[in-house]
Amino acid sequence: MRVLVLGGDGYLGWPTAMHLAAQGHEVMAADNYLRRTLMLEQDAEALFPVPTLQERARLLKERRGLEVAVRIGDLAQWDFIDRVFAEFRPEAIVHYAEQPSAPYSMIDRRAADLTLKNNLGVTFNVIQAMSAHAPDAHLVKLGTMGEYGTPNIDIEEGWIEIEHKGRRDKFLFPRAAGSLYHTTKVLDTDLLWFYVRVWGLRVTDLMQGPVYGLETGETAGDEALYPFLNYDELFGTVLNRFMVQAAVGYPLTVYGAGGQTRGYLNLRDTLQCVRLSVENPAEPGELRIFNQFVETFSVNDIAERVQASGARLRLEVKVQNLPNPRKEMEEHHYNPAHTGLLELGLAPHLLTDDVMDAMMETILRYRGRIVENRIFRGVHWRR
Amino acid sequence: MRVLVLGGDGYLGWPTAMHLAAQGHEVMAADNYLRRTLMLEQDAEALFPVPTLQERARLLKERRGLEVAVRIGDLAQWDFIDRVFAEFRPEAIVHYAEQPSAPYSMIDRRAADLTLKNNLGVTFNVIQAMSAHAPDAHLVKLGTMGEYGTPNIDIEEGWIEIEHKGRRDKFLFPRAAGSLYHTTKVLDTDLLWFYVRVWGLRVTDLMQGPVYGLETGETAGDEALYPFLNYDELFGTVLNRFMVQAAVGYPLTVYGAGGQTRGYLNLRDTLQCVRLSVENPAEPGELRIFNQFVETFSVNDIAERVQASGARLRLEVKVQNLPNPRKEMEEHHYNPAHTGLLELGLAPHLLTDDVMDAMMETILRYRGRIVENRIFRGVHWRR
Repeated sequence: MRVLVLGGDGYLGWPTAMHLAAQGHEVMAADNYLRRTLMLEQDAEALFPVPTLQERARLLKERRGLEVAVRIGDLAQWDFIDRVFAEFRPEAIVHYAEQPSAPYSMIDRRAADLTLKNNLGVTFNVIQAMSAHAPDAHLVKLGTMGEYGTPNIDIEEGWIEIEHKGRRDKFLFPRAAGSLYHTTKVLDTDLLWFYVRVWGLRVTDLMQGPVYGLETGETAGDEALYPFLNYDELFGTVLNRFMVQAAVGYPLTVYGAGGQTRGYLNLRDTLQCVRLSVENPAEPGELRIFNQFVETFSVNDIAERVQASGARLRLEVKVQNLPNPRKEMEEHHYNPAHTGLLELGLAPHLLTDDVMDAMMETILRYRGRIVENRIFRGVHWRR
Repeated sequence: MRVLVLGGDGYLGWPTAMHLAAQGHEVMAADNYLRRTLMLEQDAEALFPVPTLQERARLLKERRGLEVAVRIGDLAQWDFIDRVFAEFRPEAIVHYAEQPSAPYSMIDRRAADLTLKNNLGVTFNVIQAMSAHAPDAHLVKLGTMGEYGTPNIDIEEGWIEIEHKGRRDKFLFPRAAGSLYHTTKVLDTDLLWFYVRVWGLRVTDLMQGPVYGLETGETAGDEALYPFLNYDELFGTVLNRFMVQAAVGYPLTVYGAGGQTRGYLNLRDTLQCVRLSVENPAEPGELRIFNQFVETFSVNDIAERVQASGARLRLEVKVQNLPNPRKEMEEHHYNPAHTGLLELGLAPHLLTDDVMDAMMETILRYRGRIVENRIFRGVHWRR
């Protein structure tokens, strides 16, 4: 299948592009290096240097014989996305092309403005480009479990039947996100749902939890093919960050009580979920929503597991409960459904001791590169 | 109270600015004449010429002794809105500054792009300008009943308690709007709800139905103070349009079966609702939502009333059921709550025969100015 990966340079985009190419799909990856620009601007360099997307595509060809076509440009600009769609005529589009950091979106007005305009602007342009060039293509859009927030009822898979005063209807499950970044994903869902209804687009919206990991079937220990491993507060996901903190003896930065519970998944499972979605498309006029995670942990659970892994590798890992800079519930009900992707064939990789220790060992190889004052800066959610 | 009216040149903005000034408030109106630009671009001139906002403010001063300060600029540009807020330091903001036409938002990609960027961009900037200059001010935001769409359950006033698997929580009432324009208002609500939660803003979000009318307490027959009366498909609201069609013998353009039911209100009641909201602000951290209409009619009901008014004034009014260019239900359940504004003191003006006939007589005075081929063009919702 011809699959266009938008945001193909990112933590998930690059491994996805490699994985789909390895599975025999014809892959084009597009990116404007926004994440790299913001990482530079915010002094949030990853643990090890990551070659450019073009360079990685060359290495992938040389070392694995796999092809990923690359186009560099801003998908929020119509001229660029129009050309990419007209040239490639995708059968499926995987859309990761968003500013991916919740704390970044809360830094200041300018960062919030960039997040809102980029994220919603790209999603809007994808819809318009599909309509113009690929109306029968299937869009696989990365949303987030954070769209739902932490309601006091069980979270269903995207939709909920409501009975009210003796009548019934089915609605999008209510959303109430915890950062502007997460809110842009809510807006994406609303916008997609509108155009699915009026134009009959085919869309799968993946409500993904925090992802951890580095290795995938395609990297096979080849560090030039690794994605970004960010350990800073802005671009690092929590388990990755805690691992790096453990490696360098920096106390794990638990915000508040640490009871914040989320659904997690291994990077390998992101690739499975996205590939399964691409290969089993939604119907025309269908907004199919999957909750994309495999197991739930509280921040305290994650911290304990990192401590335990550290102990096995003879690291002394401390935990520091910091005043919570975010606005979020620190103890809450959390029971989200997640059966749709399992039914499509997802075979979960769980967060075992072996997985933890292998990841820690990889990180320890780069211990000398860790810059401690990148780890925590305390971006506040308050104005 | 210092009240800043954003979109102060519009069909509702100008009457609101006059009304608040007449009620003793200190009023500043800001606008970038976007609606005028689009009316020019789309050959959708109003029934009679409307002086510029500056000129109307001068006339209001001369003829009624009322002051409305005017600032012209684009509120989606930070430099402008920042300056306006810094200078005026509003205690209340009435935000009408959006591209107001559903059909315009569906014309093509460019029009959709403008609608999305303008509407969400201004709302975002208003939030940021409040945070920077007026964190305790109260925002009165014009939404639309169209945010809810036409669900198969009763529509509550903004919120709904959901009981699910033995647990309960309160959520925004589900939204599913029928045009991109209406969807931008859904996105506005989502964005406001996020910043209300994290920053404690005070917001009233008014879910307004279609408005009709021309005269208000402040116009008193002075046509230079009238707002735009659009009768074209893009910018004309349905009753106003049908009245003009009746005046010129153009068959009333009922889309499809005509069972589409909405909640309507007189322009005079818009002014009451907005003033009552301004004078009774929401609490800090409260997103207060009112459903703003006074009676429900189907399109067929409206057409029959226009026919009856025409008959009383010796006009022969025909109805033409056109294939529906929109994507909407033509027969549906519709039972929306609307008690909040009545509790604040709203005294409704109903759509009586006298109101109909007075409006028809005003329009008949301008009959010679009606350009028939502006009335219908059939903008399609399909791609």
